[in-house]
Amino acid sequence: MDVRLFEVSPRDGLQNEAAVVPTREKVRLIQALVASGLRDVEVTSFVRADRIPQLADAADVLAALPESSDVRFWALVPNTRGFERAHAAGIRCVSTVLSASETHNQRNINSTVRESLSALGRILSDAKAEGLRTRAYISTAFGCPYEGAVDPSRVVDLALALTAAGADEIALGDTVGVATPPGVVDLVRRLEAAGIPPESVAMHLHDTLGMALVNALAAWQVGIRSFDGAVAGVGGCPYAPGAAGNACTQDLVHLFEGLGAETGVDLDRLGEAGLLLGASLGRTLPGRYHQWWAGRRPTNGARSVG
Amino acid sequence: MDVRLFEVSPRDGLQNEAAVVPTREKVRLIQALVASGLRDVEVTSFVRADRIPQLADAADVLAALPESSDVRFWALVPNTRGFERAHAAGIRCVSTVLSASETHNQRNINSTVRESLSALGRILSDAKAEGLRTRAYISTAFGCPYEGAVDPSRVVDLALALTAAGADEIALGDTVGVATPPGVVDLVRRLEAAGIPPESVAMHLHDTLGMALVNALAAWQVGIRSFDGAVAGVGGCPYAPGAAGNACTQDLVHLFEGLGAETGVDLDRLGEAGLLLGASLGRTLPGRYHQWWAGRRPTNGARSVG
Repeated sequence: MDVRLFEVSPRDGLQNEAAVVPTREKVRLIQALVASGLRDVEVTSFVRADRIPQLADAADVLAALPESSDVRFWALVPNTRGFERAHAAGIRCVSTVLSASETHNQRNINSTVRESLSALGRILSDAKAEGLRTRAYISTAFGCPYEGAVDPSRVVDLALALTAAGADEIALGDTVGVATPPGVVDLVRRLEAAGIPPESVAMHLHDTLGMALVNALAAWQVGIRSFDGAVAGVGGCPYAPGAAGNACTQDLVHLFEGLGAETGVDLDRLGEAGLLLGASLGRTLPGRYHQWWAGRRPTNGARSVG
Repeated sequence: MDVRLFEVSPRDGLQNEAAVVPTREKVRLIQALVASGLRDVEVTSFVRADRIPQLADAADVLAALPESSDVRFWALVPNTRGFERAHAAGIRCVSTVLSASETHNQRNINSTVRESLSALGRILSDAKAEGLRTRAYISTAFGCPYEGAVDPSRVVDLALALTAAGADEIALGDTVGVATPPGVVDLVRRLEAAGIPPESVAMHLHDTLGMALVNALAAWQVGIRSFDGAVAGVGGCPYAPGAAGNACTQDLVHLFEGLGAETGVDLDRLGEAGLLLGASLGRTLPGRYHQWWAGRRPTNGARSVG
């Protein structure tokens, strides 16, 4: 593959939905995602069930997925307790998350960035000691809904600390969709200058303001080859009709195909996975390519929930 | 200005809508577009009223607009009869259109490309003789819904012929939204090599498959500084819910602001123009930035038609 798509819909998509999707429908979604050719899928998060009831079935989802040497199933672990639960459930690939901005970290994770860094550092080093794969998300890497602009040197410092602790890759989260091509290029170059090459960096873009693909193109042009997506662009706030969420995986695949890059993903099969998810959530999902594709299907029976 | 936005919503947007918008609402829309800072607005098309009843009031729209040395009001003229009507109505800026692909031209304009070129050549040369500004659209410049791929050398030949006839600028139309960044870069470079510099070329992109902004970025990177947009992304087929139409002008303005380029356009005032248009059409318009902006307004009274 020339580019790697990292699918986050079962985790980042579903945690923002009002609806709680039954475990068997999640498993069916994940299987459809894998069938389309995706090889990295973040399937759940080991969070407290009272905080995110949508993902309370984390261990059940994992237990229902077949072992595969081809596919990497990831789980997000927000803290030590989550890591212990994920490890007990047999996870092989774990991701951690903190925010580059203090206010967002405190509201999202309820601790200071320094406290998060210390806790996640222990998780990452324990995970590496167990032979697991690891990734570390840095949220609000391009801007914070509370603090506005984020100093890129702060993101570089966090990326260095997380890498030193054991993160195999850094996922730069444009949590509120405010990144711009010059900002993306600047941050990737700063990371490279600090010793973190583009091969160790993934872009986790949101399409809130319609900029996901331009930022992906800008990142591609400076060597990034790993991109997070959510099928059909799920992940937006369900209370804002039409608002876009995560970068739509189909939009990304279609972009990279247009650049002549091989993704290993079949857009029609991925579209079918998106229709499954739309049916589970009972709403039309916002991804551009997804909507175009769903509108062209010979049978439009699924359009109203596609 | 570092970049010029050419607004097409009153023409390219409205001609695809099922609803016929009253003349006074069109004039109010155009005034709102100008108030946002736009300086080129294609306000109508002098087509046969029985073919496109949505634009039957072309002369009335023009008559209701104030003369302005600041603003260029454009009208599309599909043929000699249309040019005569536009000229009689006092238009100062005229645009013509043909397709790069034979089948699309025959279905859209009911003549061969060769016949179109000959007829438009006379219009362009007459228009220049009268001291008018001129532009020539080349539709399906990146692909045709009937024929698929379009040979870029054919587009270059047409652009050269139209320029020789009197076109001040060539607008490359990605009519069905299938352009890709490499295709855009290739065509712009071919035109430049043939003697048509980027300063004489505008990009008329559609967001059907979500690629309008990436293609705009690619075009910007090779020197294009003129982009067509439709406020709120109007122009999609009203029978495909959620389907995107023309590149959303707000998306373009927001992109170029992110690149550090001055557009001269106020995004909030442009958003208000988009809400006016949504109210006239009675539907939610698809532009990404528009939807995000409309969803954040303190008063959501207009959201349902925004």
